[in-house]
Amino acid sequence: MTYTRTLLHPDASEPMPTLRLDSERLSVGEAHRWSVQTRTLRGGTQEGVDVVEINNGKLSFAVLPTRGMGIWKGQCGEIALGWDSPVKAPVHPNYVQSLENGGIGWLKGFNEWIVRCGLSSMGAPGADTIVDNNGNALEAFLPLHGNIANIPAHTVSIEITESEIVLRGEVLETMMFGPALRLQTEIRAAFGSGSLQILDTVTNMGDNPTEHELLFHVNYGAPLLEKDARFQAPFKQVAPRDPRAAEGMKDYDRYEAPCPGFVEQAYFFELAGKRGSRETLAMLSNASGEQASLLRFSLKDFPCFTLWKNTAGQKDGYVTGLEPATAYPNTRRFERERGRVLTLAGGESRTTKLVVEALETKKAIRAASAEIKALQKSAKGKVHPEAIARFSDI
Amino acid sequence: MTYTRTLLHPDASEPMPTLRLDSERLSVGEAHRWSVQTRTLRGGTQEGVDVVEINNGKLSFAVLPTRGMGIWKGQCGEIALGWDSPVKAPVHPNYVQSLENGGIGWLKGFNEWIVRCGLSSMGAPGADTIVDNNGNALEAFLPLHGNIANIPAHTVSIEITESEIVLRGEVLETMMFGPALRLQTEIRAAFGSGSLQILDTVTNMGDNPTEHELLFHVNYGAPLLEKDARFQAPFKQVAPRDPRAAEGMKDYDRYEAPCPGFVEQAYFFELAGKRGSRETLAMLSNASGEQASLLRFSLKDFPCFTLWKNTAGQKDGYVTGLEPATAYPNTRRFERERGRVLTLAGGESRTTKLVVEALETKKAIRAASAEIKALQKSAKGKVHPEAIARFSDI
Amino acid sequence: MTYTRTLLHPDASEPMPTLRLDSERLSVGEAHRWSVQTRTLRGGTQEGVDVVEINNGKLSFAVLPTRGMGIWKGQCGEIALGWDSPVKAPVHPNYVQSLENGGIGWLKGFNEWIVRCGLSSMGAPGADTIVDNNGNALEAFLPLHGNIANIPAHTVSIEITESEIVLRGEVLETMMFGPALRLQTEIRAAFGSGSLQILDTVTNMGDNPTEHELLFHVNYGAPLLEKDARFQAPFKQVAPRDPRAAEGMKDYDRYEAPCPGFVEQAYFFELAGKRGSRETLAMLSNASGEQASLLRFSLKDFPCFTLWKNTAGQKDGYVTGLEPATAYPNTRRFERERGRVLTLAGGESRTTKLVVEALETKKAIRAASAEIKALQKSAKGKVHPEAIARFSDI
Repeated sequence: MTYTRTLLHPDASEPMPTLRLDSERLSVGEAHRWSVQTRTLRGGTQEGVDVVEINNGKLSFAVLPTRGMGIWKGQCGEIALGWDSPVKAPVHPNYVQSLENGGIGWLKGFNEWIVRCGLSSMGAPGADTIVDNNGNALEAFLPLHGNIANIPAHTVSIEITESEIVLRGEVLETMMFGPALRLQTEIRAAFGSGSLQILDTVTNMGDNPTEHELLFHVNYGAPLLEKDARFQAPFKQVAPRDPRAAEGMKDYDRYEAPCPGFVEQAYFFELAGKRGSRETLAMLSNASGEQASLLRFSLKDFPCFTLWKNTAGQKDGYVTGLEPATAYPNTRRFERERGRVLTLAGGESRTTKLVVEALETKKAIRAASAEIKALQKSAKGKVHPEAIARFSDI
Repeated sequence: MTYTRTLLHPDASEPMPTLRLDSERLSVGEAHRWSVQTRTLRGGTQEGVDVVEINNGKLSFAVLPTRGMGIWKGQCGEIALGWDSPVKAPVHPNYVQSLENGGIGWLKGFNEWIVRCGLSSMGAPGADTIVDNNGNALEAFLPLHGNIANIPAHTVSIEITESEIVLRGEVLETMMFGPALRLQTEIRAAFGSGSLQILDTVTNMGDNPTEHELLFHVNYGAPLLEKDARFQAPFKQVAPRDPRAAEGMKDYDRYEAPCPGFVEQAYFFELAGKRGSRETLAMLSNASGEQASLLRFSLKDFPCFTLWKNTAGQKDGYVTGLEPATAYPNTRRFERERGRVLTLAGGESRTTKLVVEALETKKAIRAASAEIKALQKSAKGKVHPEAIARFSDI
Repeated sequence: MTYTRTLLHPDASEPMPTLRLDSERLSVGEAHRWSVQTRTLRGGTQEGVDVVEINNGKLSFAVLPTRGMGIWKGQCGEIALGWDSPVKAPVHPNYVQSLENGGIGWLKGFNEWIVRCGLSSMGAPGADTIVDNNGNALEAFLPLHGNIANIPAHTVSIEITESEIVLRGEVLETMMFGPALRLQTEIRAAFGSGSLQILDTVTNMGDNPTEHELLFHVNYGAPLLEKDARFQAPFKQVAPRDPRAAEGMKDYDRYEAPCPGFVEQAYFFELAGKRGSRETLAMLSNASGEQASLLRFSLKDFPCFTLWKNTAGQKDGYVTGLEPATAYPNTRRFERERGRVLTLAGGESRTTKLVVEALETKKAIRAASAEIKALQKSAKGKVHPEAIARFSDI
């Protein structure tokens, strides 16, 4: 049996309804204590932000259709998934002016556990050359991390099958004389599982080729992030982004306690994956090795990986980001020069899969660690002490 | 008998209601199957956009109070009025950041059949000198096509008489130390007629003189626009905007089939009008000469006319724009230098009329064509092969 | 007895309700004909703006939670408190793009009687150096008067005691890698009193020190402002902001009738206050000396005071601003150079009090005038004919 319900649709005459679906009310998946709860946030800059809270009986998480289908925060048993941003609640896109503060206005809305950057550009703010309506080169300033996190989904639906909960959403990043990109996302959570899958299909709805960048900013704070927490992933090479990151190269895979005034460090990885599928994994585990979050994805989908360490004061955003992406989060102009900006032909689609899992036992963490080590064996694991020209604008 | 109803008003305590008025429910205009339907769009960037759908028994069209009383699309018999933009649904002004992408953020909301550009500035983005609060010259960047399409009407009312439907709206483009312009528009559709009238009154509500520009961007796509579709208007002279447009000078009044990668071409006209009234007309007709849309206006109201040809790929926006205006859509600074920017004295109003008609028969189209030819007889019809300094910044 | 009610809260599932509380319905403060009325404005750019109208039996005023708890307008007996801006109704922050028009977009929403400027920066638009996420200096453009007037309160509550009405609101000005400032305001009005108190507490919620500026833009138009209206305050020194203001130095404390084309003049004061408490006062009185509005505050809270005279045409905004502040409304960069930008340590709070009173009798006005003169006796009262380097960027 399958239950489906449209939560939001352009043909509907009402906003997203507030409703609760669960295993007691619906005769589907009754073996699990699952629930789906929708609500709309009120007050301040969160006014009008829709939230879909999904609980698969083990893992719960809150999706934000209004913020491009990002995932605000999650919980799996004792593991809190997400972080504590200075931005306390989800921010409605209407309050984000991307060009503010020298192009980093995106940061006024940044507090999600999992947020997409893209779809047309992502990464550092900076000038780029675009083609204007007259076919002329136009110098345009591209703000931090693009648009997709600040575009609301126009269609959202939920499906409950005997085995899983699937939330689907569609987001349009379109503009006359600009990219016409459609994101169709499926967020899947099998009953009783500690993991969720994010299946994204990005389509160029236009006739002309268009550039495309996508980065998943997957963020963790305390208590999973703590002094002596650890990052692991199999890699061919890693390099610091800049001199500041180079300072931390010795312990780039270990974390410090919160330290007010700490300046962020970013590390660019070329990861190693399985032959053929090119599947890989990246893990953040706590100091005791009893809690972790694991990302699984293919390097075919996300050839570039960035580790962002911002072990600043707890109140300033003590956070680390695991960032599988199509490119490194430099300016798009730089990434294009390095050949890392994708192009989608007219009508072309690109599908990616990201699995995010919470690990609650030492055993599970050791198994993931062993898997990483096995992949590392056939990879060089080169650690560059300084930023390299292939990855950084040096 | 006359029926009137206020749909939106600053003193009201509720948003625009969803309602349907028609010839079956109201005892006015019963000889015609007219209807007025209001609704509010939901989901994505269309969330909260009010629509008023008017059907006079022959012509139907959808007005967008939330987008400055623009007209989204229309239908007259078999003639679809409007175009298929990459921007799929009306965009709420709150999602349009005019300064984005080098000042062409307006294009994120561009999909209407008829959209006003102005009221304080319109045309290409570019720097201009404005006077700041200290009386000093301030270099400000004016974005593409101004503000009016992204300001919601604060007052909207509908009137049904025995002969016509009249939708009225008021939009304020105001700012302390800036222009204080009020648009009062009447959109009139006589029962059973294939045409609508747009009567605009723009008032400078301030004490000081203020500059004013207004352009009607009237846009058509397939199927009315097609290979061998034709543009006709009586003119004294026409010149291409730039070298790109000059390339198409030979067939500037004919259209090509959709062609992905086609770069737009714009032609600036000095039209010819009747003596005295200075009334003129401009027509787009399809290849077979069986369908057309006709614009009627006075050169007193709109002395400048631009033809925009963008026969790009169907999915990229296959469209042509017929654009009666107070000036050419260059930067305001350039238009001022050429003496084409209007100034409204304190308290001064300016009223314009634009009639847009769908022609469904060869006979009607031939009649309009004959009317154009008659006006052409007394006008030189000079076709400049290259852009000229009077119209273009060359 | 005390009645309290939460009007808006992040945990609530509904927007602010429309409700009326008054002395007839509630058994508190029955000796006075007080009322509290909430409503949400509709249509145009005021759509969705919440208003809380408070009447303490003598003084009434309308607070705008949606605009950072500013006060739109007030009335005390025959004294209208506020002014007539070209911007006719409160503007929802979503329609204010701060960077527009060379960084003066704030003026599109400017029509309040009392509006805060700040919290991170205020004053003239201009470039400043901020620290970006990489710890690098980033040249950012700070728009006019900062953010706080365009951030909605996320929590609002009303309290009615036996002696007064207290409206509380909380507004967050936060950003990852940016300031994390919280404004908690209490607006208190004792029953039957002609004055209100604004008690603000601004807290740096972050771990790191952050800069802070706060200016109260308290604005008056006709009829209180009129030809021969008068400004009085005790001062150590006053200087014109610039040559334009210097032109009016002779009568800087007197007003002219509305004059279209008048260019604003601003005067920077170092006021004199009482020993110890450093309390001071500033008054605007009408020509006959029968109506006035009086501000009381401590120079500990607001060491800088600006008098803004904009006796332009009535329709262009005939207005004067009395502006107690932490600094002068120059660019933040300039104010920092002069040592006037505050720094709040991590976790630090700063509380200020501003009392605004309507005076309805010659007697009350003479008493205030005498109080000002008494304070003036021990202060030099130096009037600089030209702008001085201490206050202005000359």
